[in-house]
Amino acid sequence: MDLNKISSPSFLKNLNQKQLEALAGDIRSFLIEKCSATGGHIGPNLGVVELTIALHKAFNSPTDKFLWDVGHQAYVHKILTGRASQFDTLRQFKGLCGFPKRVESEHDEWETGHSSTSLSAAMGMAAARDIKKEKNYVVPIIGDGALTGGMALEALNHIGHEKTNMIVILNDNEMSIAPNVGALHSVLGRLRTAKEYSKAKEELELLMNKIPVVGGKLASTAERLKDSLKYLVVSGIFFEELGFKYLGPIDGHDFEALEKTLEYAKKVKGPVLVHVITKKGKGYKPAEDDTVGTWHGTGPYKMETGDFVKSAVTGPAWSSLIAESVRKCMKEDERIVAITPAMPVGSKLEGIQKDFPNRFFDVGIAEQHAATMAAGLATQKMKPFLAIYSTFLQRAYDQVLHDIARPNLNVFIGIDRAGLVGADGETHQGVFDIAFLRHIPNIVLMMPKDENEGQHMVKTALDYDGGPIALRYPRGNGIGVEMDAEMKAIPIGTWEVLRDGQDAAILTFGTTIPMAMEAAEQLADQGVDVKVVNARFIKPLDEKMLHEIMGANMPILTIEEAVLQGGFGSAILEFAADHQYNVSIDRIGIPDQFIEHGNVDQLLEEINVTADETVKRINKLVANKKQVGSRKI
Amino acid sequence: MDLNKISSPSFLKNLNQKQLEALAGDIRSFLIEKCSATGGHIGPNLGVVELTIALHKAFNSPTDKFLWDVGHQAYVHKILTGRASQFDTLRQFKGLCGFPKRVESEHDEWETGHSSTSLSAAMGMAAARDIKKEKNYVVPIIGDGALTGGMALEALNHIGHEKTNMIVILNDNEMSIAPNVGALHSVLGRLRTAKEYSKAKEELELLMNKIPVVGGKLASTAERLKDSLKYLVVSGIFFEELGFKYLGPIDGHDFEALEKTLEYAKKVKGPVLVHVITKKGKGYKPAEDDTVGTWHGTGPYKMETGDFVKSAVTGPAWSSLIAESVRKCMKEDERIVAITPAMPVGSKLEGIQKDFPNRFFDVGIAEQHAATMAAGLATQKMKPFLAIYSTFLQRAYDQVLHDIARPNLNVFIGIDRAGLVGADGETHQGVFDIAFLRHIPNIVLMMPKDENEGQHMVKTALDYDGGPIALRYPRGNGIGVEMDAEMKAIPIGTWEVLRDGQDAAILTFGTTIPMAMEAAEQLADQGVDVKVVNARFIKPLDEKMLHEIMGANMPILTIEEAVLQGGFGSAILEFAADHQYNVSIDRIGIPDQFIEHGNVDQLLEEINVTADETVKRINKLVANKKQVGSRKI
Repeated sequence: MDLNKISSPSFLKNLNQKQLEALAGDIRSFLIEKCSATGGHIGPNLGVVELTIALHKAFNSPTDKFLWDVGHQAYVHKILTGRASQFDTLRQFKGLCGFPKRVESEHDEWETGHSSTSLSAAMGMAAARDIKKEKNYVVPIIGDGALTGGMALEALNHIGHEKTNMIVILNDNEMSIAPNVGALHSVLGRLRTAKEYSKAKEELELLMNKIPVVGGKLASTAERLKDSLKYLVVSGIFFEELGFKYLGPIDGHDFEALEKTLEYAKKVKGPVLVHVITKKGKGYKPAEDDTVGTWHGTGPYKMETGDFVKSAVTGPAWSSLIAESVRKCMKEDERIVAITPAMPVGSKLEGIQKDFPNRFFDVGIAEQHAATMAAGLATQKMKPFLAIYSTFLQRAYDQVLHDIARPNLNVFIGIDRAGLVGADGETHQGVFDIAFLRHIPNIVLMMPKDENEGQHMVKTALDYDGGPIALRYPRGNGIGVEMDAEMKAIPIGTWEVLRDGQDAAILTFGTTIPMAMEAAEQLADQGVDVKVVNARFIKPLDEKMLHEIMGANMPILTIEEAVLQGGFGSAILEFAADHQYNVSIDRIGIPDQFIEHGNVDQLLEEINVTADETVKRINKLVANKKQVGSRKI
Repeated sequence: MDLNKISSPSFLKNLNQKQLEALAGDIRSFLIEKCSATGGHIGPNLGVVELTIALHKAFNSPTDKFLWDVGHQAYVHKILTGRASQFDTLRQFKGLCGFPKRVESEHDEWETGHSSTSLSAAMGMAAARDIKKEKNYVVPIIGDGALTGGMALEALNHIGHEKTNMIVILNDNEMSIAPNVGALHSVLGRLRTAKEYSKAKEELELLMNKIPVVGGKLASTAERLKDSLKYLVVSGIFFEELGFKYLGPIDGHDFEALEKTLEYAKKVKGPVLVHVITKKGKGYKPAEDDTVGTWHGTGPYKMETGDFVKSAVTGPAWSSLIAESVRKCMKEDERIVAITPAMPVGSKLEGIQKDFPNRFFDVGIAEQHAATMAAGLATQKMKPFLAIYSTFLQRAYDQVLHDIARPNLNVFIGIDRAGLVGADGETHQGVFDIAFLRHIPNIVLMMPKDENEGQHMVKTALDYDGGPIALRYPRGNGIGVEMDAEMKAIPIGTWEVLRDGQDAAILTFGTTIPMAMEAAEQLADQGVDVKVVNARFIKPLDEKMLHEIMGANMPILTIEEAVLQGGFGSAILEFAADHQYNVSIDRIGIPDQFIEHGNVDQLLEEINVTADETVKRINKLVANKKQVGSRKI
C-alpha cells in the first residue's frame, strides 16, 4: 500500500493477517530505502515492524499511551501515525525528528532520546489516569538493554509496589546497542530458551497432583510447593517477584501470537510485562547479520549491498583516536582500566576490549554505576578511563560530584561526542558538560584543538594524579594533522597562543578554533590584529595568560560550542570580576534553548556561531574600545 | 571497657561471646550518651552494633574493605577503629565527621553520604584486587532502603554478571529512613517471614525423592523441578536470579549466627549476599518504638526520656511551611500531586499523605524515577510537586534536563535544604543547585526572603503553566514573619527593592538577605547609601531592574549561599556583558571547594560570607568607582 496515504492507525483494525503481513513488508521496504538515503536507526526499527503494527491494532492511540523507550525505534510508529511522507527529511535540519516529538504528533505523548525513562513516565501517566478516574491503557515499550538502566529498575520496583495497571512491552532483541551485559540479561536468556515453558508448567501441575499425601507435614509442604510453582524460573519469576504478571516469551514477528497475548494482557489487573522476542534488522540481511551493533544506527548506505556510503573524512575518528591512545598507554601502565556504559562500539573501545579483556568493563546502560565503579577503582590506586558520551554523562552528574570529585579521586573521564552532535538532535547534543562540570571543585577539564593535541591530552590525563580530569572530544573526525610519534603530557592549565595580535583576543578551544582562525584572517584583511588563543584548559584557566591579556586592556571574545550560561565565557567573566579587570568581554556560544537536529554547520549558522559573527563581534568590541578606552578599576 | 582505649579492631579476635555482648552493651550506652549531646544518626547506629563488631571480628580491615552505604551508620565502625575519643565533637566544626571520611582513617576506604553507592564502589575495589591478583574481601554493607536506588540495582546486575567475589551485607531494618517502599521491599518481607526456610528446603528435597517415576516425561519434569528448587522464593530467588548466592535471613543481633554465616560467606566463590535482619534503635526504647523515622537522625535529646531538646526557633520549619502551603492548594486544585523520594518525614509531607493518599507518592530512594514520573504526570495536565533535597536533586540532573525541561513540562520542584545544611557536611550541602539548574533552558528558579514570600511562591509555582519551576528553601526555620491570610502569585522574574540607595546595590536572595540588610545599616552609618534587592528570581532575572541599576552605573555586589562558579553572580556578570554595561560587579558566595560539616554560621564565617565582608567589599567597590568612574561602553 501507499504508506504516504496513512493518516491515522485506525485502518489497522480491519486488516486480516495476510494484509498485516503485506503491510509489514511494505514498511520494511520503505524503511530500508528511506534510511539508505538519510541514515538512521534502521536496525532497531526493522526489528519492531510487526510489534508496532500489532500495538496500534490492539490499542487506540492517542487515548491509549505508547511510550517508546530510548525512542530511536519509533519510525514504524511515525509511519502508522501519518508521517511517512516526511521520511525524506528524517533527522535533517527542520525535518522529521529521529525520536518521538510532542510537537510532531499527538501520538508522541512521551519524548525520549536517553534510555530507560519510559517506565517512570508511564507510572506518571497511569497515576494521572487513575486520579482522574479515566480509562486507558498505558503501554511503555522498553528494550532489554534499557532495562538495566537504574531508573528503569527504580520504576519497576515502584510500579510493582503500587500494582498500577500498565502493560509493559519488553522488546527483547538480545542486543540493545552492543551485545547486552548484566545478570538481567542472563535472566532473560533463561526465559528465552525455555521455549516449552507453558507445557512444562502444565506437566508440573499434573505431577503435583500425583504426589502421595504421606502425612500432614509433607502435605503442607506439597501445598507450599504448588504455590511456588508460579515462581519457577520458566515463568518469569524475576518480574513476578517484582509484582508483575509475566506473559511470554512470544515471537515478536508473529501477528497471531502478538494479538492473542496483547488481548490477554488488556484483561490483566495490575502491571503486566509482555516479553516479546524480536530480531534486530529483521528482513534486511546486512543488518540481520550484524553481531556487534554496526547496524544499530548508520549513515547512508547502498541499499543493494549494505555498503556504507563513505563520507569524505580528513583525520581519524575522534573516538578511535582517544581510545587508541589510551590503549597504547595501557601497554605500559597496568593501572589503567577502561569502563564503558554500553558503548564499546560507539566509543571505539574494541581494541582495548580485545587486548586487555581483564582491564575492560562494559557495564551496560548504567552511567551511574560506571562512574562510581571508576571511583572505587581509583581508591585502589588504579587509573580508570571512563568513556561516556557528553549527553549521557548527565546521568552521572551526582556520581562525578559526590563519588569522584568530592574525595578527589584520580578518574580520567573521556567525554565523547562533546558539542553539537547533529542528526540525533536535542536529546543528544553534548553542550551542557562544561556548565555542569565547571562548578564541581577539584575537576580538570580540557579539550584539544586537533587529534595530535588529543593524544597528548590522553597522556596528560593518564599521568595526572591530582584528582579527576576530563577530556572532551567531539563527534566525527579530526582535521588530519600530523601526529607526533611520542605522546607527551601538557602542563595543566596552560593555554597556547595560535596567532598573536594586539587589538583583541579570541579565547576558544576545540572545534571552534578553525572558525576563530578564519575570522582572524578576515579581520587582518580589515586591519584588525587579533590574538587567537587555544584555551585548551577550560578548568583551571591559564591565569598567567589571562592576566597578560586583561592587563593589556585587550577586548576579549570567547567562543564555545556549548551553552553560554555558566560556560567557559562565564568563567572568563568571573576571572575578570574577581581580579577587577575592567576589560570588555563578549561571548559567542549556544543560547539558552535546546538545539534540535540537523547538520552541525546548519545548526551553528542558525544560532550565529560563525566566523562572520566572530568578525562582527570583534569589530564591535574594537570600535567600542577606541571610543571609550578601558582601564583597570 | 573503656572505648577510648581502642586503637584498632584487632582486639576483637580474642573475645568470646560473652565479652562481645558486654562490648555491644558498652557501645550502646556510649552512643546513646554521646548522641544525646551532639545529635546524630542514633537509630541506624544502635541497629548495627553487633553486626559491626561481628564484621570487624570476621574480617581484617583495612586489608579487607568495608563500604558503609549512605554512611550514617558508621559510628560503631569509628569506635572500633580508634575514634571513640572524638565523639564529643561529632558532626561539629572541625570535629568528627558523621560519615566515613578518608582523611580520618585508613579504615574508611569509601566515603559516602548519598545513598546506594557502595555496590558500585565495591565492584571497582574488587576489580582492582583481581587485576592486581591480590587477596582480600570486599564487603559493602547496604540497607534495604538504599537497595531501591537505581545505581545499586545497576551494580547488582553488573556484579552478578561478572561473578565477582564480594560479600554484600544486606542490612535489612525494615525501615530505611521512612518505612520502606517498593516491590523489592515485599520480596524482602517474604524472605523475612520465611523463618523456617531451610527446613522447608530439606522437606522439599525429601519430597522430591518420593515422587514416583511414572515414565520418562514426568521423570524429566521431576528433574527440572529438582533443579528449580533453588529458585523457590524462600531461598532468596530474587538475588539468586541476579547471580548472587543468597544466605539468610539471619538475626543481626545474634553473634553466633553472624559469625557462622560470615565464615561461611568467606568460603563462597562469586558474589554472595548475606541478608541480616536488624532492629533500628535497638537497646534504646524511644528509638526502638519509632515507626515513622523520627529517630533516624536527631538533634540533642534528654537521655532518660528521649525528649528532644528544643532549640529556640523563630518561625515555622521551612519544610513544613512549603509542604503545608502545597497541601492548602491541593484542596482547591485537583491537578496537584506530591512526590517524594523516601523523604515524607524530612520534607514534612505527612499532612499531604494523610489528606490526599491518592495524590501522594513516596517512591523510595529513587530520585531519577521521581523526577521522570513527575514529567509523566505533567504530560497528562497534572501539576506534580516534587519535593527533593537540593543535594539529592543532583541524582536527577539528567531527568530534570532531559525529561522535564526539554519538553517544557509543568513540574513544580521543591528544592528542600538548599544552601549550607551544617552538621551533615560536605556530602549534603545544598550549594550546587543554582549552578546545575541555571544553564538548563526553560527553568524558572526562585528563592523566598521569608516564609510569607515562601507561601506566595508556592502559589506562584502552582499557578504557573509555562514549564518547570523550582523553589529552593533552606534547612531549618523561618524568621517568624507575619503570614498573609491569602496566598498570591508573584509575577515571574520580578525582584523587590528592600532598601533603596544610590551608591551601590546588593543583589541577594533567601538566607543571605538579613546579612545584606545588616551590612547596609553599617554602611549607612559610614555614609554609604546601599540599595538592597531581594533577587528572588534567580532565573529569569529581573531585566528591567538590572537595566535601571546598571544604567545608573551603580556598582553591584551579589551574595549567594551557593557556589560562585556558574552561580547567580555569574548570571549578573553575563547580563552585564551581554548588554555591554561597564559596571563593577563583585561576588560573595561559596568558593570552589567542598564545604565540610559544622554549624552554618561557623561555616559562613570560615568562607567569608558575612556582613563584615559585605561591608568591606561594598566600600572597595564604592572607592574604586569614585576613583575611576564607570560608564556604558
